[in-house]
Amino acid sequence: MEAPAAVTAAVLAIGDELLSGRTKDRNIGYIAEYLGKIGVELREARIVPDDADEIVAGLNALRHRYDYVLTTGGIGPTHDDITADAVARAFQVTIDEDPRAIAIMRERYRPEELTPARRRMGRIPAGSELIVNPISKAPGFRIGNVYVLAGVPSVMQAMLDFAVKTMRTGAVMQIETIEARPVPEGQYGDALGAIAAGHPEVSIGSYPSFKDGRFANQIVVRGRDAAKVAWARQAVEAMLAALRAGDKPA
Amino acid sequence: MEAPAAVTAAVLAIGDELLSGRTKDRNIGYIAEYLGKIGVELREARIVPDDADEIVAGLNALRHRYDYVLTTGGIGPTHDDITADAVARAFQVTIDEDPRAIAIMRERYRPEELTPARRRMGRIPAGSELIVNPISKAPGFRIGNVYVLAGVPSVMQAMLDFAVKTMRTGAVMQIETIEARPVPEGQYGDALGAIAAGHPEVSIGSYPSFKDGRFANQIVVRGRDAAKVAWARQAVEAMLAALRAGDKPA
Repeated sequence: MEAPAAVTAAVLAIGDELLSGRTKDRNIGYIAEYLGKIGVELREARIVPDDADEIVAGLNALRHRYDYVLTTGGIGPTHDDITADAVARAFQVTIDEDPRAIAIMRERYRPEELTPARRRMGRIPAGSELIVNPISKAPGFRIGNVYVLAGVPSVMQAMLDFAVKTMRTGAVMQIETIEARPVPEGQYGDALGAIAAGHPEVSIGSYPSFKDGRFANQIVVRGRDAAKVAWARQAVEAMLAALRAGDKPA
Repeated sequence: MEAPAAVTAAVLAIGDELLSGRTKDRNIGYIAEYLGKIGVELREARIVPDDADEIVAGLNALRHRYDYVLTTGGIGPTHDDITADAVARAFQVTIDEDPRAIAIMRERYRPEELTPARRRMGRIPAGSELIVNPISKAPGFRIGNVYVLAGVPSVMQAMLDFAVKTMRTGAVMQIETIEARPVPEGQYGDALGAIAAGHPEVSIGSYPSFKDGRFANQIVVRGRDAAKVAWARQAVEAMLAALRAGDKPA
């Protein structure tokens, strides 16, 4: 039985603050983990500044290549929030105040509070579906295969819960994590490479971390076929057991 | 007096684990902040999987466009560590065990510990300069305008301290942060846009965060000319003071 084809995605994180170091991005890792759990594989992520040309170029590079693109950031009420206009340009569609978006914002803002700045958040490219924002109302939107989400993590996360409902999903990646302790990477690297070569339907990674002056390593086996993942895991564990016992790896 | 031209950089973070969500990247934000402090502007970041074609394509896209590219990850001893070979391919140079790298690794490993897997870490593209790794010895390297660093944050950080010594640096960006509290973004957005339009030599950003059910906002003014940054800051503070006093912004 052939494993079903992967459904793929990319993230385009937008914001000068992510590239100045002022804000440490927390959205890419969150989206990666979230999509993985529902069977969508994140294949690439890019961080670009609040620059229309950069956003358009990044979006066009990614949206033709992956099943879905999720953007984060740049949809607030200030002059540096230019994502919606850039997305419209990338898709070569018009953009204007969307009556649906303005109606939603009226639930939160009194008429005198609906400043021109806030109305900017109602600008939505033609042909988009709105993405609900239960936190602060001003919606995100989906156009084609692109989901445009907020940059503030809690708002992004709430929008993502809604956005994924319209995504096609594939088989969920099965992931097995094996603690290699106390065998160091350099000791099991050759044997692990041989196991990886012998199990081409799974992907095997070795991940060191460094704490208190020592490396600790985890070996991760990933694949869409649970039996093949389990088989590779057995091979890794047998290899580690032999090395722990002081034997030379096969 | 004209502000000096910017020195620019991009990060290419390499690793399946960053895209599966297993590991949350902490290197991009660290490098962004670090480079900013020494006068190098991070302009773009990409995360790509452990796939040679993806690494080569990403590297070639970035290295022709920015003054420097820093890569993170994929230079360990296991089969999934393919960064050095991919970098050699991108630069169309040969790659082989480097006697300088092997000599450094002999400081850490006894001869019988220098397994074929560990020797992989001594593979360095022709024409590279080594980057010292004070934590675990196996070096990074610089080839052309590309700095190849480890993925483990503590090791990457130690390598970065060494790597930046060979970078040309520009004027350090002056950054002023203004708390907008209690004025919400939607209230100051229009006035802030006018200030931004009137101060084209600085970049002004507005950054909301959400905590305990409320938004809090910071306005950040950035630029290479301290006087122009200070002037824009004054305009922002005067605008906020007027709004706090309940006046309509000018």
